[in-house]
Amino acid sequence: MAEQVTVALDAMGGDNAPEEIVKGAVAAARENPELNIHLIGTEDVVRKLLEASDYPKDRITLIPSTEVISTDENPTMAIRRKRNSSIVIGMKEVHTGEADCFVSAGNSGAVLVGGQVVVGKIRGIDRPPFAPIIPTAAGPVLLLDSGANMDAKPEWLVQWAQIGSIYMKNQLGIKNPRVAIVNVGAEDDKGNALVKATFPMLKECPDINFTGSIEARDIPKGTADVIVCDAFVGNVILKMYEGTASMLLHEIKGVLMSSVRTKIGAALIAGPLKKTLKKFSAKEYGGAPLLGCRGLVVKVHGNATQAEISHALKQCITFKREDINQKIVEGLHLNETKPQAERG
Amino acid sequence: MAEQVTVALDAMGGDNAPEEIVKGAVAAARENPELNIHLIGTEDVVRKLLEASDYPKDRITLIPSTEVISTDENPTMAIRRKRNSSIVIGMKEVHTGEADCFVSAGNSGAVLVGGQVVVGKIRGIDRPPFAPIIPTAAGPVLLLDSGANMDAKPEWLVQWAQIGSIYMKNQLGIKNPRVAIVNVGAEDDKGNALVKATFPMLKECPDINFTGSIEARDIPKGTADVIVCDAFVGNVILKMYEGTASMLLHEIKGVLMSSVRTKIGAALIAGPLKKTLKKFSAKEYGGAPLLGCRGLVVKVHGNATQAEISHALKQCITFKREDINQKIVEGLHLNETKPQAERG
Repeated sequence: MAEQVTVALDAMGGDNAPEEIVKGAVAAARENPELNIHLIGTEDVVRKLLEASDYPKDRITLIPSTEVISTDENPTMAIRRKRNSSIVIGMKEVHTGEADCFVSAGNSGAVLVGGQVVVGKIRGIDRPPFAPIIPTAAGPVLLLDSGANMDAKPEWLVQWAQIGSIYMKNQLGIKNPRVAIVNVGAEDDKGNALVKATFPMLKECPDINFTGSIEARDIPKGTADVIVCDAFVGNVILKMYEGTASMLLHEIKGVLMSSVRTKIGAALIAGPLKKTLKKFSAKEYGGAPLLGCRGLVVKVHGNATQAEISHALKQCITFKREDINQKIVEGLHLNETKPQAERG
Repeated sequence: MAEQVTVALDAMGGDNAPEEIVKGAVAAARENPELNIHLIGTEDVVRKLLEASDYPKDRITLIPSTEVISTDENPTMAIRRKRNSSIVIGMKEVHTGEADCFVSAGNSGAVLVGGQVVVGKIRGIDRPPFAPIIPTAAGPVLLLDSGANMDAKPEWLVQWAQIGSIYMKNQLGIKNPRVAIVNVGAEDDKGNALVKATFPMLKECPDINFTGSIEARDIPKGTADVIVCDAFVGNVILKMYEGTASMLLHEIKGVLMSSVRTKIGAALIAGPLKKTLKKFSAKEYGGAPLLGCRGLVVKVHGNATQAEISHALKQCITFKREDINQKIVEGLHLNETKPQAERG
């Protein structure tokens, strides 16, 4: 029998909570016998949804929460004050070891702050980055940091390159992942102060397959497997990618619907087009992990439906099975690190 | 008779030099009787190209240059050492007033360095930004800085917002242009250190129509007319936009060509699709001006063909006719500025 994995799942986070969260939990639990879910949410609402479905009662446990952190709340205040929220309760479970992982489609800032102060970082990790998969023409690419640390330091980017390599190797099975740093040109002397300071450090880092700079133009082509940058730049990359694709597809749809002639054309290409575009959906990769925390904290898109929740839960199974946090500790030699208090 | 405009044109810069540059010069001079072109390049080569065409001899003058700055040269060294290059000769002409504007499809870095040290800045302008037009679903948008100043200061971004507003109003005729700063969220307290410091300054700047933050996701929609950010972020935006569009269109083309059925579909939609996509071509807007220099310095795409060169030359006509530099001096109250030496 496979090793059991316990995931604390925020039933109250995201636009489609709690309905889609509960559905995703039930589907994932049915498909994965090693999965135990602590479903955290407003008791009567979640119970009703659970009871309306045929769920594995021994592996989905309802944990009542009495507060909800909404998306527009100040994250730091919310985490500090709403101790009975689904996010704080779930994160505490990971902190104490009652759960291995935490998954939420709720307030990103609260997931970030909570990951750092409630779940806690792996000792020796400076700043956990958000690390979503972005689908490219050549397959999945890990972009970190995409939202956690706006004004980053060179040594953080080096850690992210190491962590990202370990994640891509073990979570997605990519051998010797190519690591690149986002830059404005291919030459070694290009960049802003952060990139210029980080570049030589990455070049000398022995544990990674550093391939140099990547220009934003090449990111959608998938010419690297792990891409590092500060969270401001990462956020811009992620959202330009989404925004450009969404705008262009909207324009093309407009063309296809513009006349009888183009509608016939559309009918002829619709099937293969959908199939091709499907490979650019991030859904099947689950959510964005906040890597470097104890256990695993996963932030799923706010508009997630049951499929994405279900994929995020499977992501947790792989993460635990492959013992990725232990590999991070070993790979970054963190057990040899001085205690936190002695570090700058 | 319209006011005459003299443009120093680098005949030797870019992938298609000098053929396409000369063709663009001839076409623009024929169409615009107020245009005088100083075509700077290797004498015999350019003369042969000119003589093979029917060009207005009184308004295109060949200025011989004996050196060429290639795209892979170190810009600072090249500008310092190659005094007889087409770039340095052309820029000197703007500095001395022999020419009003300078246009080049050559080495971007050399155009930037030369713009600052050979052409010279308008007194009181801190750092000229590269300001290309990006075409969006809602029309042209000015993105500055897109390549000149990697590690920017808040006061530079404020100047860019002011300069960009004046440019969009007078060059493109956009009334009361909406100014936005690139950010990672809509809330006022979001951002990195630069954005957090700049935001309140933009809010208090009286000369601009500041509409707040813009997330990268909304840039392709065209929800602002003038977008400010540091040059690292601007470069990432520009190249993600190009790269995502190019990758997606490549994928879609692959689908259209994949079977007999889809080829028939493609034939039915090709015309209207091309028409729609054409509005996303930046070509007709000319090149990226380095705003805030004396005269006007325009950097055209390295792969520019005659059409883009011709558009860039027309851009110079409008810039001079609308007296945009004088409007910048007045709008930013630069005539009231202390002499350069007394400034920090």
